[in-house]
Amino acid sequence: MNKLYIIKIGGNVLDNEHALHTFLQDFASIQAPKILVHGGGKIATQIGNQLGIESKYIDGRRITDAQTRDLVTMVYGGLLNKQLTAHLQTLHCNAIGVTGADGNLLKAVKRPIGKIDYGYVGDIKPDDVNSTFLYFLLKQNVVPVFAPLTHSNGQILNTNADTIASVLAISLSKHFEIRLMFCFEKKGVLKNVNDDSSVIHQLNESSYQKLLKDGALADGILPKLENSFSAINAGVKEVLIGDAKDLIKNIRETTEGTLITKS
Amino acid sequence: MNKLYIIKIGGNVLDNEHALHTFLQDFASIQAPKILVHGGGKIATQIGNQLGIESKYIDGRRITDAQTRDLVTMVYGGLLNKQLTAHLQTLHCNAIGVTGADGNLLKAVKRPIGKIDYGYVGDIKPDDVNSTFLYFLLKQNVVPVFAPLTHSNGQILNTNADTIASVLAISLSKHFEIRLMFCFEKKGVLKNVNDDSSVIHQLNESSYQKLLKDGALADGILPKLENSFSAINAGVKEVLIGDAKDLIKNIRETTEGTLITKS
Repeated sequence: MNKLYIIKIGGNVLDNEHALHTFLQDFASIQAPKILVHGGGKIATQIGNQLGIESKYIDGRRITDAQTRDLVTMVYGGLLNKQLTAHLQTLHCNAIGVTGADGNLLKAVKRPIGKIDYGYVGDIKPDDVNSTFLYFLLKQNVVPVFAPLTHSNGQILNTNADTIASVLAISLSKHFEIRLMFCFEKKGVLKNVNDDSSVIHQLNESSYQKLLKDGALADGILPKLENSFSAINAGVKEVLIGDAKDLIKNIRETTEGTLITKS
Repeated sequence: MNKLYIIKIGGNVLDNEHALHTFLQDFASIQAPKILVHGGGKIATQIGNQLGIESKYIDGRRITDAQTRDLVTMVYGGLLNKQLTAHLQTLHCNAIGVTGADGNLLKAVKRPIGKIDYGYVGDIKPDDVNSTFLYFLLKQNVVPVFAPLTHSNGQILNTNADTIASVLAISLSKHFEIRLMFCFEKKGVLKNVNDDSSVIHQLNESSYQKLLKDGALADGILPKLENSFSAINAGVKEVLIGDAKDLIKNIRETTEGTLITKS
């Protein structure tokens, strides 16, 4: 099976022009099929403030009302996504910027109203990916660049970028040997959250369970690890958690970040 | 050769929720390969006003400064384009929203600074279309929906939607028998601009030249007609100028609007 890299970058890279350019150069240089998934960034909050759209939270969870949904459709699906696409084109990487609505790539279910109404938020499962069309794009040497947006019943919905990356990886694991890469501002999963040199270079289900039992992991990294092991247990070959600056080192066999495998 | 419809809609349809829904239903029902090209609309001006971005004109021509370019990237490439795409998906039309940067579909040249610096405006020619990729998308029964944006050297550029529709039609005329359709707020080209029943149903080069000589055409329609005859003279089989409301009637052999052919 061919290798496929599915790489997620967050706001910390998008908000820094120099870091973004370096990252995109590294990304463009990867000589294998690849997909980029991007999050938001400060620009959405800035433009939202200018438009008088307040960020709303209930119990610490962000709420996507209709105004916020239109804001992220503009900023994530328009401004950021098209800037990234045009930038990659000039680096000779034939990117195509997409949301889940495009080519029906990611059909979501609007989150049901429970204790909290999260608003226009889409939940997705691996079966919701139009993997046939995605596979066809990759075979054309086109590089999909996903904004964190999905669709349902004619509506654009806000969806977490980490979740999109995981779900794409699981869905495509029948066609490719996948390395799913979460790029963030740390070198990897750290034994000591204050010591950047304490990277755990290898993790599997049993070493993860041992670390959990010992209470050795910082709370902040737990959702990313849960997401990673869900992907591994659903057929994704490898997950890498590392620094966006180490992208080139982290696509190799021996990595700088944390490489997560089944066993 | 297979038939292909390339259909351009302007702001008058985009600004009216009911008219837009009817138009998209009609568009989705066309049982042939098709492409939609959309213009802007009042929403860009509204959001621009809220963000304090002024519309700038020199000698009556609109200038796209950097702020305006980012505004149209957000509103045309994000908000409008993704709303149209999600709307078409719910009508079982597998739309993919694109700008010229996506898949390198339309590579432009930034307009050279002459007497006027138009700013971030892209000029395009039929050779600038990635018709190979466009052809592949159409063969997958995917329906491209173009925002009026192109790219050059890593930059998104503003480009006239009528020009995009013409250039796409010329470029694809080697693969398809094309009907290029300009939908606007009139029934067609009128003999008497104040009489909607005075539609000229057929036009070719010689009858057009005769009308021009007689001064029988309103100034407002001349750019659309010049655009139309450029397309016809470059290999496009038919151009139709008509009302968005008459879409279904105008895809037939006998049309309500003005059908322009070579002879």
